[in-house]
Amino acid sequence: MTSPLAAQGRNVREASRALAQATDEQRSATLLTVADSLKNREDQLLEINAAEVEAYVESGAGRDRLSLSGPRITAMADALREIAAAADPLFESLDASVRPNGLHLERLRVPLGVIGVVYENRPNVTSDVAALCVRSGNAAFLRGSSSAQRSNQFIVDLWRDALVAHGLPADAVALVQDPSHRAAVEFMQMTDVLDCLIPRGGPSLIAAMREHARVPFVLDGDGNCHVYVDESADLEMAVSIVANAKTSRPGVCNAAETVLVHESVAPRFLPELSRAIPQVELRGDDATRALVPGAVRAVEDDYGREFLDLILAVKVVASLDEAIDHVARYGTGHSEAIVTDDPMNADAWVRRVDAAAVLVNASTRFIDGGELGLGGEVGISTQKLHARGPMGLRELTCLKWVVRGTGQVR
Amino acid sequence: MTSPLAAQGRNVREASRALAQATDEQRSATLLTVADSLKNREDQLLEINAAEVEAYVESGAGRDRLSLSGPRITAMADALREIAAAADPLFESLDASVRPNGLHLERLRVPLGVIGVVYENRPNVTSDVAALCVRSGNAAFLRGSSSAQRSNQFIVDLWRDALVAHGLPADAVALVQDPSHRAAVEFMQMTDVLDCLIPRGGPSLIAAMREHARVPFVLDGDGNCHVYVDESADLEMAVSIVANAKTSRPGVCNAAETVLVHESVAPRFLPELSRAIPQVELRGDDATRALVPGAVRAVEDDYGREFLDLILAVKVVASLDEAIDHVARYGTGHSEAIVTDDPMNADAWVRRVDAAAVLVNASTRFIDGGELGLGGEVGISTQKLHARGPMGLRELTCLKWVVRGTGQVR
Repeated sequence: MTSPLAAQGRNVREASRALAQATDEQRSATLLTVADSLKNREDQLLEINAAEVEAYVESGAGRDRLSLSGPRITAMADALREIAAAADPLFESLDASVRPNGLHLERLRVPLGVIGVVYENRPNVTSDVAALCVRSGNAAFLRGSSSAQRSNQFIVDLWRDALVAHGLPADAVALVQDPSHRAAVEFMQMTDVLDCLIPRGGPSLIAAMREHARVPFVLDGDGNCHVYVDESADLEMAVSIVANAKTSRPGVCNAAETVLVHESVAPRFLPELSRAIPQVELRGDDATRALVPGAVRAVEDDYGREFLDLILAVKVVASLDEAIDHVARYGTGHSEAIVTDDPMNADAWVRRVDAAAVLVNASTRFIDGGELGLGGEVGISTQKLHARGPMGLRELTCLKWVVRGTGQVR
Repeated sequence: MTSPLAAQGRNVREASRALAQATDEQRSATLLTVADSLKNREDQLLEINAAEVEAYVESGAGRDRLSLSGPRITAMADALREIAAAADPLFESLDASVRPNGLHLERLRVPLGVIGVVYENRPNVTSDVAALCVRSGNAAFLRGSSSAQRSNQFIVDLWRDALVAHGLPADAVALVQDPSHRAAVEFMQMTDVLDCLIPRGGPSLIAAMREHARVPFVLDGDGNCHVYVDESADLEMAVSIVANAKTSRPGVCNAAETVLVHESVAPRFLPELSRAIPQVELRGDDATRALVPGAVRAVEDDYGREFLDLILAVKVVASLDEAIDHVARYGTGHSEAIVTDDPMNADAWVRRVDAAAVLVNASTRFIDGGELGLGGEVGISTQKLHARGPMGLRELTCLKWVVRGTGQVR
């Protein structure tokens, strides 16, 4: 007995085969068509969305994430145009060589196939993720939240119309119809349909994926990011970088959560930092509190968490080694910065700190797909397999070996 | 309460940090030292292994896989020397660019960290896998079978001595001490210790990993490989390739399991094939059986499985499209070959068949790390994330973003 989800999955799988053969032009043009129709049909989408927002009972940030508006829809359309304009990631040939037996080898960049994305309220994710998938030749199989189901379905239908208009199969973008937990678990276990799962959401979604998924997934995990202010740092630069990394957008994963300061510069740096970001609560060790009387006493847990708020943990360290060890212990492998004028210390940081991104004299806030020039991102991976850091179009592809011979046998 | 495995895991994790900083020379020299000590201490290893073989109660291939011999130990030592001589996969710099804001970007190839490998009887895997891990700067945390525990421990101890002799931490190569199923499950869930899991074994191990693993893994799955003999094929070449792909080593994953033949050449090809490989049982559809009277009638299941034996499924197809659809339906994404003289058909096969490797006019048996020049392999991935096809040294690395600025903020 085939479930409705399994039947839908077979159609998506089949559609992915045709999409993988689409031309660059077909794929880009589909995105541009969706960008136009989002704006043309904005009123309808806003109406559907307003009804869902009104029906939304929980309080907190979920309501805002669920809400669309004219400017938000314009931003969605602009994102599609940007991704359409990005270079085609497909069919690049790498590592060409000829073996001693005359076999010609190469590796060809091809789509993954079907990408499953599980996400929470935001309906804009529906459009962004479909765009990255289709641009890279992948079918997008989407499982959004039940509160946004009608908005998501409206956006998915625009996609399906656009695909068909460009000679591509509608099922290359599909939305899971059943919003139940049971269906979500079934979805994460569709090894015959999905080549890759990407969770876009908080710790409970990540935990559910770790527990239930049978399909390989790429984790978009926490960012407990550090800035280390070295003995040789330009302190004015250090204050500017820490202030930016902490306060420009405290709720995102590339915001800094802890500053580590070399003891020789702490007496000058910490009071200056405290004056520069008076809105931020500092939680420090004893050395910090001796220099910044207003700082709260930090407990162990303060070094191990993402505040995602205007709170910054502070620790005075005796050496670069101590800073690196602290990051190894508490970091989540996201983005880790040093401020230093010493090239040796910069190199030691780059080489010895184990994270998706290491930065020298720059704010951790630069670690996202747009800032690194990837033309959008489907998430920021904090694992090491497949993709590390922002996942753009190229991270939605894989390499296929191509071997051409003249009858060689072994 | 920390389990013994968790305590061991912490030590391995810590050792991986030092190993990641080791020089190319330290890493290679460690392999050469182990190669020498394997031969120098061969008698002791053979004695320990003989006792384990004697104690082994199950019948079948497991006993042979467990057994070491002088020549097998020599082969192990030779493999180490070969991997030691391979080019260093680490610290290659890729994708260097400068952003409009002046940030310098690059991606640096670095070790994954700690690689967990779960495998079955073969003690030679202990040495091969440790070599690939250490050469690529990764700690190897190994979980072998209980029947080979003493042989494995002896080999691991040679590794630990060699690491220390070259100034590296012994715990960079470690063997799980507890052979219980419970410990195996705990091992697969050590997200704080392992960056990657690799199963080396049969379907039951793969199933256990899909069920229990919380750590990202790379699946070394089945190889249901096809050879398609096109309308335009050189039939002598086709017979030679199919014979080689089926009979040179029927028990391995890159052996062919099904031959698909275009109907226009089937009347000449199939009788020739049958004469060339009389030792192989052919299981065919009606069209095949009309041409090869000795062929057994194929059932659906014959097209969907790995025989790993001198049995070959045969199907006559009406077109290239039908062959490609057959592979999409029954293939496992391993290695798929076409024999053709038509460049258009060769290109269609290369582009439309979705597998780790596609071959034109060559035997599927070439898809392994040694034959493709990777300097050894830790397995052959049939998934698409991270690595596809043979996993050599480079597949045991990941790319870290390095961003260098002059005080940029966002």
